[in-house]
Amino acid sequence: MLQRIDFETQSGVPMYRQLHEQIKSAIKMGRLVPGEKLPSMRQLAGSLGLNRTTVAAAYELLEAEGLIRSHVGRGSFVQAPPAAGQARLDWESLIPGEEVPPAPSTSGALISFSASRPSEFLFPLDEFRATCREVIDSADAVQILQLGPASGYSPLRRHLLNEAQHRGIAGPEDDLLVTSGCQQAFDLIQRVLASHGETVILEDPVYPGLRNAFVRGGARVLGAPVGPEGVEVAALGRMLERERPRLMVLTPDFQNPTGATLPFEARKTILGMAQRAGVIVIENDLYGGLRYHGAEVPALKQLDNSGDTVLLGSFSKIAFPGLRVGWAIGPRHFIARLTEAKEASDLHSDQLSQAVLLRFAESGRLEAHRKRMLAAGAERLEACLGACAKELPRGSHFTRPEGGMNVWARLPAPLDASELAVRAERENVSYLPGRYFAVSRPQPHGLRLSFAGLTPENIRYGLAVLGTIFRGEMNRTRARQQDEPAPAMV
Amino acid sequence: MLQRIDFETQSGVPMYRQLHEQIKSAIKMGRLVPGEKLPSMRQLAGSLGLNRTTVAAAYELLEAEGLIRSHVGRGSFVQAPPAAGQARLDWESLIPGEEVPPAPSTSGALISFSASRPSEFLFPLDEFRATCREVIDSADAVQILQLGPASGYSPLRRHLLNEAQHRGIAGPEDDLLVTSGCQQAFDLIQRVLASHGETVILEDPVYPGLRNAFVRGGARVLGAPVGPEGVEVAALGRMLERERPRLMVLTPDFQNPTGATLPFEARKTILGMAQRAGVIVIENDLYGGLRYHGAEVPALKQLDNSGDTVLLGSFSKIAFPGLRVGWAIGPRHFIARLTEAKEASDLHSDQLSQAVLLRFAESGRLEAHRKRMLAAGAERLEACLGACAKELPRGSHFTRPEGGMNVWARLPAPLDASELAVRAERENVSYLPGRYFAVSRPQPHGLRLSFAGLTPENIRYGLAVLGTIFRGEMNRTRARQQDEPAPAMV
Repeated sequence: MLQRIDFETQSGVPMYRQLHEQIKSAIKMGRLVPGEKLPSMRQLAGSLGLNRTTVAAAYELLEAEGLIRSHVGRGSFVQAPPAAGQARLDWESLIPGEEVPPAPSTSGALISFSASRPSEFLFPLDEFRATCREVIDSADAVQILQLGPASGYSPLRRHLLNEAQHRGIAGPEDDLLVTSGCQQAFDLIQRVLASHGETVILEDPVYPGLRNAFVRGGARVLGAPVGPEGVEVAALGRMLERERPRLMVLTPDFQNPTGATLPFEARKTILGMAQRAGVIVIENDLYGGLRYHGAEVPALKQLDNSGDTVLLGSFSKIAFPGLRVGWAIGPRHFIARLTEAKEASDLHSDQLSQAVLLRFAESGRLEAHRKRMLAAGAERLEACLGACAKELPRGSHFTRPEGGMNVWARLPAPLDASELAVRAERENVSYLPGRYFAVSRPQPHGLRLSFAGLTPENIRYGLAVLGTIFRGEMNRTRARQQDEPAPAMV
Repeated sequence: MLQRIDFETQSGVPMYRQLHEQIKSAIKMGRLVPGEKLPSMRQLAGSLGLNRTTVAAAYELLEAEGLIRSHVGRGSFVQAPPAAGQARLDWESLIPGEEVPPAPSTSGALISFSASRPSEFLFPLDEFRATCREVIDSADAVQILQLGPASGYSPLRRHLLNEAQHRGIAGPEDDLLVTSGCQQAFDLIQRVLASHGETVILEDPVYPGLRNAFVRGGARVLGAPVGPEGVEVAALGRMLERERPRLMVLTPDFQNPTGATLPFEARKTILGMAQRAGVIVIENDLYGGLRYHGAEVPALKQLDNSGDTVLLGSFSKIAFPGLRVGWAIGPRHFIARLTEAKEASDLHSDQLSQAVLLRFAESGRLEAHRKRMLAAGAERLEACLGACAKELPRGSHFTRPEGGMNVWARLPAPLDASELAVRAERENVSYLPGRYFAVSRPQPHGLRLSFAGLTPENIRYGLAVLGTIFRGEMNRTRARQQDEPAPAMV
C-alpha cells in the first residue's frame, strides 16, 4: 500500500520525479505488490496537493519502466517484475560474431609472462608526481583543459618533431600526428590505407593488436615469416613481387613477440625492394629505445632516402602505459589524411597526459628513467635467457634479443604450447602461446615470454615451473611412444 | 674540405653516428661542397684511429640520406641536395581525396560563435588542481599508470554505472564502456553496426563530427528534418517504414546545432516506432545536464521499457573538453562488441583523466561546478536570444533552446549564411554556416550561434556586428530588386 509521500521542495528535483522515485521505491521494497491497484491520478493529486499532470507524468514514467500498467476505466496496477533479458532486439543476431580471436583475458597467475609491459614497481612515482604538479600549476593548464587540435597538443608535437629531426628520423617533408598509443596509429593507418580489402603484409608471428586492427578493418592480411634475424628477407621479397601489397608493417628492433632485430643490410635490402614494388613501409619503433646491449642499427625511416617510410613511436613501453600517447611521423600528405581520420575517431588525444609526458621528457626525467629501465631490462633479459637455457626441454629453441621485452621460445614437437599453458596456469605461471600471434602460420610450438614486468627472481622461478611441466610432458610423450606396439613388418 | 673530427667518447652516442653527424654538418654548412671527394674509408679510419667498419657505417648512412654517393673504384663524393618533395610514392594518388567536407579551421575571429564548448574562463582551475593532486598523491597512482582494461578505468566505470542505475537510465541488463569522448562512441558504433553500408538516420541538420563518423565509415546516411521541437516525428516515421535503417541517432535535449528539445510525447512515439521497425536507437545525451529552465524530460533510455536504447554521455560539455572522457550505456551484448572495437582502436582511454574526472565527480566538485555552469549558461542564452530578437533582419527565425550551447538561426532568403560568414570574419566575428551541418538538405540560410564560450557582453556585441552585416545585405538585395527593370507585359 502507498503509505506516505514526502517532497523536498528545495532539492531542485522536479515533483514528478520525486513522486516517481517514491512509488518506485515502494514497489522495489515490496510495500506495493504486483497486482495492487494504485490510487487514481485524481485521488493522488488531490491528497498530495499536486497538479494532476504531475501525477500523470510520474505514472507514465513508471509505466514506461514496466513497473505499473494502466487500463482505461480500471486504473493503474503494479506489474510483476519482467523476466531478465526481455530486450526486444535480438542483439546476438544483429551483431554476429567476429572472426578475430578475442584477446586472452588477463591472467590471474601469480607469475605472468603474458604482458609485454614494464613492471609497475619500476614506475618513477615521485618524478611522475612532481611532473604532474608542474603541469597543473603552470599557466598552460587552461589550454590543456580546453578542446585542442586533432594533430596533438602543439608543444608536444613540436618537441617530438624537433627531436626526430635532430636524430635524423624526420626530414623536411615529414609531419607528425600524436595518437592514443601505437594501437591507434595501427587503426588509423588501416582506415586510411586499407579500408577496401587491400593486401597488407605483417610479420608472422606478430603482436595480435596489430593483426586485429587490420583484420577487423577487412584488409587481406598476409604473414611474412620472422626468423632469429627478423623478417626473412628473401621470403618477403617474393611476397612483395607476387602479392603487390599496399603496405607492410615491420618492427625492426626487438620485434613483438620474437624479440628479433633486423640487421643493417636487411633493412637496406627491404627498403630497396619496397621502393621498387611501390609498397608503403610502416616502421613500428615501439621498442627501439630499449636496447640493453649490442650496437644500435639505424631506423628504416633514417635509412630511407625517399622519405616515404612512416615511423610509429610511443611513450608506453618506457614510461607509463596507462597514459596513452604515441605518434606517427611520415610524409606531410599522408599525415594530413591520418589526422582527418583521427579527428573523426576521437577529435584528439587526451591533453593532460600529453602535457605531462612532454614535461617528463623536457625535464630530462624521461631519459634518466630510460637509463634505469635499460639497467633493469638487461638484468631481466639475462635472467630470462639463462633460465631458458637451463629449464627448457632438449630440442627447444629460443631467441636471444638485445633489447625489448620479449623472448620467443619454440618447444620440440609434439609439445603443444596452448595445452601446456592451461597446465602452467594451474601452477600459477602464465604465458601466451604461439597461436595468439599467428598470421598465416599456426604456431603450435611457439610461446612468448614477456620478461620486463617480472623480477629476475620471479623470472627464474617461473621458468623453473614451466621447465618442470614441459620436460615432464616430453618424458611422458616419449614413454607413450615407446609403449606403442611396433607396427607389423610388411 | 673535411677539416677536423672530434669524438665525445663519454656521450654514449655510437662512433659511427658521431662521424655521420659531423660529416653531415660539414656538408650542410658548406665546408664540403657537392662533387667534392671524401677521404677513402681506409684513409679516414687510419687518421681517426677508428675501425674501418665504423667509417663504412657512417658513409652508408650518409649515402642512404642522399648526402654522398659512392662509386666502386672511384670513391665517395658529396651529392647535390635533392629537390624538395622527392618522395618516390605518389601519396596524393595513393590516398585520393575524401568526399567528406573538412571541418572548418579554427577561426581567428575575436568573437567566435563557432565552437560548441564551454568558456575556458569558467574552468574551475583551483578545483581541478586540487582534484589532480588528490589523484596523483593517492595509492591508486600506480594502477592509473599501468595498462588497464579496454572497458575503462574500473572505479570510474562502476561510478558511472551506479549513477545511471540510480537515475533510472541503466537497467540490470545494461553495461557501460568508457570512450574517449562522445566522438569515439559515434565512431565505434559506426564500426560495430554500420561498417557494411547500412542505412543510418541522423537528425538534419546535425553536428558534423557525428555525420562524418558514419559517412567516412561508408554508411548510407539519411537526414530526418529537425524543427523547433526536435526531429519531426511524422517524417521520421515515414523514413523508418520506407528505409528500414539499421539505427538512428537522436539528441533529444538541446540538439546540436538547433538547440531543440524533443517533447515527452514525441519521445514515446519515436520509441514505439523504432521498436516496431526493429531500429536501434542511439541517444546522444551530451547536453542533457545543461538545462537552464523549463521542466526536465525523461531520457529516451529511461522511457524505453525494452532496454534496447543506447545512451551516450560525456564530461566534456560540463567539465573539461581537453580531457577526453565519455561513455556508452546499453545492452550487455552490444557493449561487449563495442568494447572489442574499442580495444582494436586504442586499447583503452587515458587513465589519468578518467581518474581525475572520477575524483572530480565523487568529491561533489562536478555538481557544484555544473550549478555554476547552469547560472552562466542561462545568462548567456538570455543574452543570445535577446540579441537575436533585436539584431537579426526581419523575416529571420531562430530557435529558443532551454539549455545547451547553441541557437540556430535561419536568415530570410536570399541571404546566404556561408557568403556572409566570410564578411563577418573580416569584422572579427565568426559563426558556422548551415552547410557544415547539412545531411540531406542544404541549409543555405541557416547558421549556428554557439553562445556558451562567450561573455554576455561579447554575445551582444558580436550579434550587433552580425545584425549590421545581415540587415545591410538585406537592404542591398531589396534595392537591387527594385532597380531591376519591370518585365515586359505580355
